[in-house]
Amino acid sequence: MRYRVAIGASSFGDEDDTPLRMLAQADVEVVPNSLKRRLTEDEIIAHLEGIDGLIAGLEPLNKRVLLSAQPRLRTIARVGIGMDNVDLATAAELGIKVSNTPDEPARAVAEMTLTALLALGRDLVPTNSALHAGAWKKSIGTGLAGARVLIVGYGRIGRQVADLVRAFGADVLVADPYVDEAALRPDERLVSLRDGLQQADAISLHAGGTDRLLGPEQFDEMKSGAILLNSARAQLVDEDALADALERGKLRGAWFDVFWQEPYEGRLLAFEQVLLTPHIATYTRQCRLAMETSATRNLLRDIGISG
Amino acid sequence: MRYRVAIGASSFGDEDDTPLRMLAQADVEVVPNSLKRRLTEDEIIAHLEGIDGLIAGLEPLNKRVLLSAQPRLRTIARVGIGMDNVDLATAAELGIKVSNTPDEPARAVAEMTLTALLALGRDLVPTNSALHAGAWKKSIGTGLAGARVLIVGYGRIGRQVADLVRAFGADVLVADPYVDEAALRPDERLVSLRDGLQQADAISLHAGGTDRLLGPEQFDEMKSGAILLNSARAQLVDEDALADALERGKLRGAWFDVFWQEPYEGRLLAFEQVLLTPHIATYTRQCRLAMETSATRNLLRDIGISG
Repeated sequence: MRYRVAIGASSFGDEDDTPLRMLAQADVEVVPNSLKRRLTEDEIIAHLEGIDGLIAGLEPLNKRVLLSAQPRLRTIARVGIGMDNVDLATAAELGIKVSNTPDEPARAVAEMTLTALLALGRDLVPTNSALHAGAWKKSIGTGLAGARVLIVGYGRIGRQVADLVRAFGADVLVADPYVDEAALRPDERLVSLRDGLQQADAISLHAGGTDRLLGPEQFDEMKSGAILLNSARAQLVDEDALADALERGKLRGAWFDVFWQEPYEGRLLAFEQVLLTPHIATYTRQCRLAMETSATRNLLRDIGISG
Repeated sequence: MRYRVAIGASSFGDEDDTPLRMLAQADVEVVPNSLKRRLTEDEIIAHLEGIDGLIAGLEPLNKRVLLSAQPRLRTIARVGIGMDNVDLATAAELGIKVSNTPDEPARAVAEMTLTALLALGRDLVPTNSALHAGAWKKSIGTGLAGARVLIVGYGRIGRQVADLVRAFGADVLVADPYVDEAALRPDERLVSLRDGLQQADAISLHAGGTDRLLGPEQFDEMKSGAILLNSARAQLVDEDALADALERGKLRGAWFDVFWQEPYEGRLLAFEQVLLTPHIATYTRQCRLAMETSATRNLLRDIGISG
């Protein structure tokens, strides 16, 4: 019997067909997502008829969907990190193997974090728009050499951001209640969040969960002229406390890629010194391809074909 | 006799008084530039009366100025790289020791080059301005992982740019007729300019001199979608050939910090995909302080006071 694999992820293989060639080489029959968008519940139920494995995007894979795909569906390989769209408990009950690709996005997110940090320090956006408008105005920026960067949350992404800022000569402080001093690189320093906020020139959030870490008191504790970077979760930060801190000139600038509601239309739009990007920190060609090939390997492994 | 040192550089010690404290510690009498701007020829002649050493900015230090300061002026320490404002031949004849600070700006320029490269790859400027205007539009960018970056000119700055892009996982090609394969890092590759242009996803200019390196033929040889970065000298690039290449969509984008005339008002202003900065690649607090302390050390050494 030839395995049949359905593609859920809407742009799978579009930029680079390597993952499709991997599936072809494994002699798997591929059922593409010809709608090229996120499938609805009824569409994914129809799509999963007679399917052994799914390369999943963000389509709803709830109990009804998973039950309807039985007994044949054996594996789900998510292209990406988030699993909120998958009913993991039901998948486990049904013996469906579920995987995701947590490693690949870390590099893209770390790179985007550096992009924003460097651009804010050097006033790239206002300087570029002034010169395009004909104004030749030099100003002194802030480089990373000798700057103190606080990494809040020392997981996959936090560690990569730490490595990159060190390459630019910055000093790294780490705040993470779940990390031991011994886990740090030799030239990194473990601090409490409070100590870190008081000392840091830039603060980059990479914590899990949605507990609020930065409220009015925490903004008061920060150094004047600090830069705040958030590619993790908006809920880590109190939106009004941040906007108030920006209004009174406490922060030099900030970058947010994640928001309290998306699409975002809130208070941060009003601040020129805040860089805003629409949740695209993982959106690089390289990351996309790496996640797709990784998901393909996961699927072939879980379905029982060695890669 | 107590040495008397004049300050020419207009903002010397303003951001951070470390270099002024170094001079005070050496028991040197300091004559500040109280006009806080570039001095004219007559002003610097008056300023140099009874002076042993000058911390120099870009004031004219031509034959007339140098002769008028004799016999006392013994040393000139430039804060910066360029020496075009100093009549070096006359200084040599008069036995005046002249120094500059070529090492310190390299890091700031390399950092700004990465800032521009990353921002162009991730469409930071258009994405940020779209979201500020209320448009939530995701698009896929290009990261540095696995990208090929051509370094044209492997001097102080070129080598630092190479180190930084390697930290992001890029592959480095080097084009420099004066460099041997043996001088490269193990994972860098020496190429001809032509081969480099054909293979590179991004091209960063760090060559000396003003010979034109990139004309119409060279733009034709480049990969479609390449990024061009120029922090070196505008004259290395034919302005019209560049603008034409941008017009026909050959390049993904470009960054220029140096121009054929400054202030710049030329054809590049019309292109949104070109980042423009007003010759500020060395303009960081860190670079400024490092150059000022280095110039101070040079001055104290050349005047005969060990630092």
